[in-house]
Amino acid sequence: MKFVDKLVAASTRNDSLLCVGIDPNPAQMPDVPLLDFTRGIIDATRDLVCAYKPNFAFFEAMGIPGLEALIETIKYVPDDIPVIGDAKRGDIGNTSEAYATAVFDIFRCDAITVSPYLGYDSVEPFFQYKDKGVIILCRTSNKGARDFQDIAGKNSEPLFETVAKKARQWNTEGNIGLVVGATYPEELKRIRELCPEMPLLIPGVGSQGGDLELAIKYGVDSAGKKAIINVSRQVIYASKGNDFAAAARAKAGEMRDSINEVLSHIGKRS
Amino acid sequence: MKFVDKLVAASTRNDSLLCVGIDPNPAQMPDVPLLDFTRGIIDATRDLVCAYKPNFAFFEAMGIPGLEALIETIKYVPDDIPVIGDAKRGDIGNTSEAYATAVFDIFRCDAITVSPYLGYDSVEPFFQYKDKGVIILCRTSNKGARDFQDIAGKNSEPLFETVAKKARQWNTEGNIGLVVGATYPEELKRIRELCPEMPLLIPGVGSQGGDLELAIKYGVDSAGKKAIINVSRQVIYASKGNDFAAAARAKAGEMRDSINEVLSHIGKRS
Repeated sequence: MKFVDKLVAASTRNDSLLCVGIDPNPAQMPDVPLLDFTRGIIDATRDLVCAYKPNFAFFEAMGIPGLEALIETIKYVPDDIPVIGDAKRGDIGNTSEAYATAVFDIFRCDAITVSPYLGYDSVEPFFQYKDKGVIILCRTSNKGARDFQDIAGKNSEPLFETVAKKARQWNTEGNIGLVVGATYPEELKRIRELCPEMPLLIPGVGSQGGDLELAIKYGVDSAGKKAIINVSRQVIYASKGNDFAAAARAKAGEMRDSINEVLSHIGKRS
Repeated sequence: MKFVDKLVAASTRNDSLLCVGIDPNPAQMPDVPLLDFTRGIIDATRDLVCAYKPNFAFFEAMGIPGLEALIETIKYVPDDIPVIGDAKRGDIGNTSEAYATAVFDIFRCDAITVSPYLGYDSVEPFFQYKDKGVIILCRTSNKGARDFQDIAGKNSEPLFETVAKKARQWNTEGNIGLVVGATYPEELKRIRELCPEMPLLIPGVGSQGGDLELAIKYGVDSAGKKAIINVSRQVIYASKGNDFAAAARAKAGEMRDSINEVLSHIGKRS
């Protein structure tokens, strides 16, 4: 099954556009073993999400045990919920092939985030996995996004728009998506216009302060789907105590419901 | 000791601008255990190089045993030779902090390659490690480099030049370098003009076909140093037989000597 179909199926079944980002940071985590934490979060939220997004950085920072836990965490996600490996990889062709092997065959993600800086031949090896999703950084959620992504080239078109247009051209297999931060709603609107069919991974609501209502209004496709609203810290660190899973569930439920209220409000609640 | 000082010291001691890229690919490797291969390459070339550059992708593609071997490989490099972790990381601030922890504290690299696409706050966490090198992708060696890196913004300045200028601004600690492919000699020349003091990591000679003479002529600083001429496949896969280490040594020696001949020829042999 293609990534996008798995995504829409999970989204429909759980009535949710919420993606929970799994970013285990020892400074913020409850005092439990890493796998108990990640599995606890998954158990508590599996009926509330359209996807999970483990971020490789936080697991890598815990060394080999962290990477082992990453594999086990991904294995623990129910088969019918897609896992987006947030790894932001990208290198010359033969190296991107190796990264694709790592993320899809070793870590067994359903999708990966990749950086476009090296151009077509750096992302093409990921496209070869036709059932996997390849989610290209377009307009990121951070402040520094402006440094290069706003640079205006031909016809004053900013770099992020050029990336979106190229991604659309490259999307012959229907397996490409884009990362667009909720912190830049006007840019999100423009990217959704350019790429009406693509799944958009939208971080930046929650701890980063992006506007949830605009993220949904501008981020969903015409059917009110294919927006992947990611929340990490606000959900997984809802409590640092023994009640971390219950607190994460409560917060995730609240986020899902808030998203669905906006969808109703804009007439896109199915 | 700062990365750049360690680099120049190794370069001077071994009379070499050659960096050997360690990209273990099972399809190309001799039939020996991974660590025997990487350690064999290091033993055979340690007096011929200014640095080693293990590429994380190839180790990740071999799963946990590959990542364990990456740690052991880096540990095996003599203390006075810098290790450049070719990882091309970069994410929003708190995530880049985690990547910095991984690459510098867990894998214990002396430097890392990073992608600039997310802007200042995505690379700044790496800069905090003042003795470590942060080598920013500027003009990559692959064909797709043209897709976005050539986009001309204000005053027709291509993106890669804007990246070089920003990197120079950000370099208050003297710990930044740039990746510039040998396959684009004119761009290399321009970047060396913009950043006369920075170490430049120059892949693309060897299997990728870049011009060695121009790479050196345009890549070195005024003292004939700080160009890190990377060769991976041509050295480490010089033979697939039991003589892989001897063959790698012969090829690395040949490359070092060719580089030094060019340096003599242009009057920069110290």
